[in-house]
Amino acid sequence: MPVEMKLAKIIISEINENQVVFLREVDGVRQFPILIGIYEATSIDRRVKDFPRIRPLTHDLLVNTVEALGGEFDSVIISELKQQTYFAKLRIKQDGELVEVDCRPSDAIAIAVTCNPHLPIFVAEEVIDEALMPDSGQL
Amino acid sequence: MPVEMKLAKIIISEINENQVVFLREVDGVRQFPILIGIYEATSIDRRVKDFPRIRPLTHDLLVNTVEALGGEFDSVIISELKQQTYFAKLRIKQDGELVEVDCRPSDAIAIAVTCNPHLPIFVAEEVIDEALMPDSGQL
Repeated sequence: MPVEMKLAKIIISEINENQVVFLREVDGVRQFPILIGIYEATSIDRRVKDFPRIRPLTHDLLVNTVEALGGEFDSVIISELKQQTYFAKLRIKQDGELVEVDCRPSDAIAIAVTCNPHLPIFVAEEVIDEALMPDSGQL
Repeated sequence: MPVEMKLAKIIISEINENQVVFLREVDGVRQFPILIGIYEATSIDRRVKDFPRIRPLTHDLLVNTVEALGGEFDSVIISELKQQTYFAKLRIKQDGELVEVDCRPSDAIAIAVTCNPHLPIFVAEEVIDEALMPDSGQL
């Protein structure tokens, strides 16, 4: 069963190439970090802080395009952790069907916080188990 | 009538905040520059050079999502220039209809070069006229 988690913290550092987002269980205390790039971290941060945007940025464009094609975002899921790399999926409803599209967790989280209301962020139980192992390599 | 143009040059500078792409007429000699951000310039550059990508980056994700929802990219168009800001649209076919989605020209060009084969890039005639005026403010 995937576990619902929420964006707990974003740490943006100008010194490091990788930035960090923390996901925390909605109904629990487990949390883990994901390393992401500066562009994605900034994109997520701007959305969480609701900065005004004159023209649609790339994640806005993705959301607008899905709506224009008759899709409706359902949720995002971080589905796999392989060799210290997370894999995620966008889950979109269209004509009563669930369509899943592979993506990076940073895009998944950016899309989740671009939608209004924000989308639920799910994480596969085995991903949490692996992420919490001491040798997971993530921080 | 919109004019078909192609990506003629990308200039990436680490000193300047804004990067430059040049569009040049396919059947003519007119060309003009568009200032874009470093992330977008890098994204376009990587696609033109066909760098391998382990996981889908944001523009790949947009293309994959459109395909998953039964859409097919037709072209992109730079449709307007207002107060030194360009506006563009993605043009997508779905169920025989043409769906247009507003975007920035940098996303439009990145999407055009992400698709295989690349999408045609159209520019509205009045945008070219304005872009070529000496006081257009673009460079």
